[in-house]
Amino acid sequence: MSRQQPGSSEFELIQRCFTQGYPTDAATLLGIGDDASVIAPPADQHLAQSLDTQVADVHFPANAPAHLIAQRALRCAVSDLAAMGASPQGFLLGLTLPDNQPDWLDDFARGLRDAATACGITLLGGDTTRGPALVISLLVQGWVPALSHPRGLTRGGAQAGDDVWVSGCLGQAALALPMVLANPAIHTGLAAAYYYPAPRLTLGQSLLGIATAALDISDGLLQDAHHIATASAVNLALTGEHIPTAVALGHPGWPDCLSGGDDYELLFTAPADQQTRIATLAQQLDVPLTRIGQCQSKINDQQPTVTVLLQDQPVQLTTSGYQHF
Amino acid sequence: MSRQQPGSSEFELIQRCFTQGYPTDAATLLGIGDDASVIAPPADQHLAQSLDTQVADVHFPANAPAHLIAQRALRCAVSDLAAMGASPQGFLLGLTLPDNQPDWLDDFARGLRDAATACGITLLGGDTTRGPALVISLLVQGWVPALSHPRGLTRGGAQAGDDVWVSGCLGQAALALPMVLANPAIHTGLAAAYYYPAPRLTLGQSLLGIATAALDISDGLLQDAHHIATASAVNLALTGEHIPTAVALGHPGWPDCLSGGDDYELLFTAPADQQTRIATLAQQLDVPLTRIGQCQSKINDQQPTVTVLLQDQPVQLTTSGYQHF
Repeated sequence: MSRQQPGSSEFELIQRCFTQGYPTDAATLLGIGDDASVIAPPADQHLAQSLDTQVADVHFPANAPAHLIAQRALRCAVSDLAAMGASPQGFLLGLTLPDNQPDWLDDFARGLRDAATACGITLLGGDTTRGPALVISLLVQGWVPALSHPRGLTRGGAQAGDDVWVSGCLGQAALALPMVLANPAIHTGLAAAYYYPAPRLTLGQSLLGIATAALDISDGLLQDAHHIATASAVNLALTGEHIPTAVALGHPGWPDCLSGGDDYELLFTAPADQQTRIATLAQQLDVPLTRIGQCQSKINDQQPTVTVLLQDQPVQLTTSGYQHF
Repeated sequence: MSRQQPGSSEFELIQRCFTQGYPTDAATLLGIGDDASVIAPPADQHLAQSLDTQVADVHFPANAPAHLIAQRALRCAVSDLAAMGASPQGFLLGLTLPDNQPDWLDDFARGLRDAATACGITLLGGDTTRGPALVISLLVQGWVPALSHPRGLTRGGAQAGDDVWVSGCLGQAALALPMVLANPAIHTGLAAAYYYPAPRLTLGQSLLGIATAALDISDGLLQDAHHIATASAVNLALTGEHIPTAVALGHPGWPDCLSGGDDYELLFTAPADQQTRIATLAQQLDVPLTRIGQCQSKINDQQPTVTVLLQDQPVQLTTSGYQHF
């Protein structure tokens, strides 16, 4: 069991797949092909970094077209940079493959190049290995302004009284999932939200100095709202009627829109005096931004809570609908 | 197929396993627990980064003790930083696990903490996912001096006439492999070289300004020597009698010492006028450094070559010995 390396012809394939056609940037001094890549950080920037792993038949259908798998994997990873208010710089790819299929790898690289171009992020390096299943690990990184926002947009700054906002419309990817599983090659309509999530990069960067806390919704609005509540030690009260969803409140799919995940929209909090500024931002960026609730003081010695209100009454969401408490 | 997240109890386990007892450093502003980690790069440093993936039963025995798997994975990854002359800063961990075994994860974390402490590297973040097999992806990064060596130690600077040097003694891990496969829990004697490779960090940093090219030997001396030859466009002529190996030239295991891999020693080139300086360095660092050959001009229009000479005659190494051309 020495290290099993790709053969020579595959080495050439990797060279072809992963060295040409990707965006470049001024900070990258050394890319693929040495023991490590090297970047030159600008003097006034800090570096935000996130590692994201996707496993075949856990995070995506193994039999989906390779370019769609790549698109989704990189876009999901870059969404974490959007959530930090970071400007994408570069990424490294760990790719574990069950077998040597040059056509598959060519198609994967096509999707990766297209997604990298869409996100404006440089491929810095990576590692390709054999393994029993397709596993994709992506390290993505980007800059945040060192002086004004040294740690970017974190989850921990929400204050009681802050508004809770969300971008876009929730639930499209969750509603697409049965279709995607039945036919993984479908990538239009709702399925586009599943395969081509658009990291809210410009929005995230614009929210520096406006938002008090932020994250991207990957696990569903309710679960991710808990992350802000916990990190900020506040309760979140969300008004169900105000949450923008792919189907309306009376539809049986409505609860899935709040818990299904894979949205990659930004959930953020901001002081009430930022409402006008945020409304202007929504117009400038042409991104729907909706105020869906408020942060409240949590009760001493109790865990922070997230509550969804319908007609001002708290409801409990289940997979088949919602129940009043 | 929404994102399958670890359950709440596993979340706590991950918190316990991956947030305490790791080295810290001044550059890390934000670690585990947000959408991304954030580091503050010092003004006079560039950042070298490498991503390394290890798969169970491909790169290590799946049934090896978890702490040994972690030790080996992190040390192998950090070795790439040594090869660049970089000072370790931080790492991110992508961990794909087939099942939820808290004891296994505790033991893995113990090895990871110990290896991180030995290497002086901060755990910045990561992602834990379910999958059909154990896959470990590690992004490691470290600093190189921006002004004097903006790209660190690359593979591409060797010149005809340069000496070829190697650190330590080759072949211990390769010779240990049959034992390790028979009993993956053995971790002393030769097996220590397999599970606890020591990244040559101080040596790598000391070679900045001395070496013209460098890499760490992971795939075997001969294959990795080809990487320097190719990147630098020179031929390498190695004197078999001078190569430090775990068994002597007449031993049937000798060829494995040159091709087996997993050494994580540094192979580097340097001008002949650096010989005294390198000998002094070997004494100061208490690391054997051996001059094993020379770089030569390659023949125009031909691929660079690596030749092993015995009694001044080129030989071809096979798994069962070596043959004269």
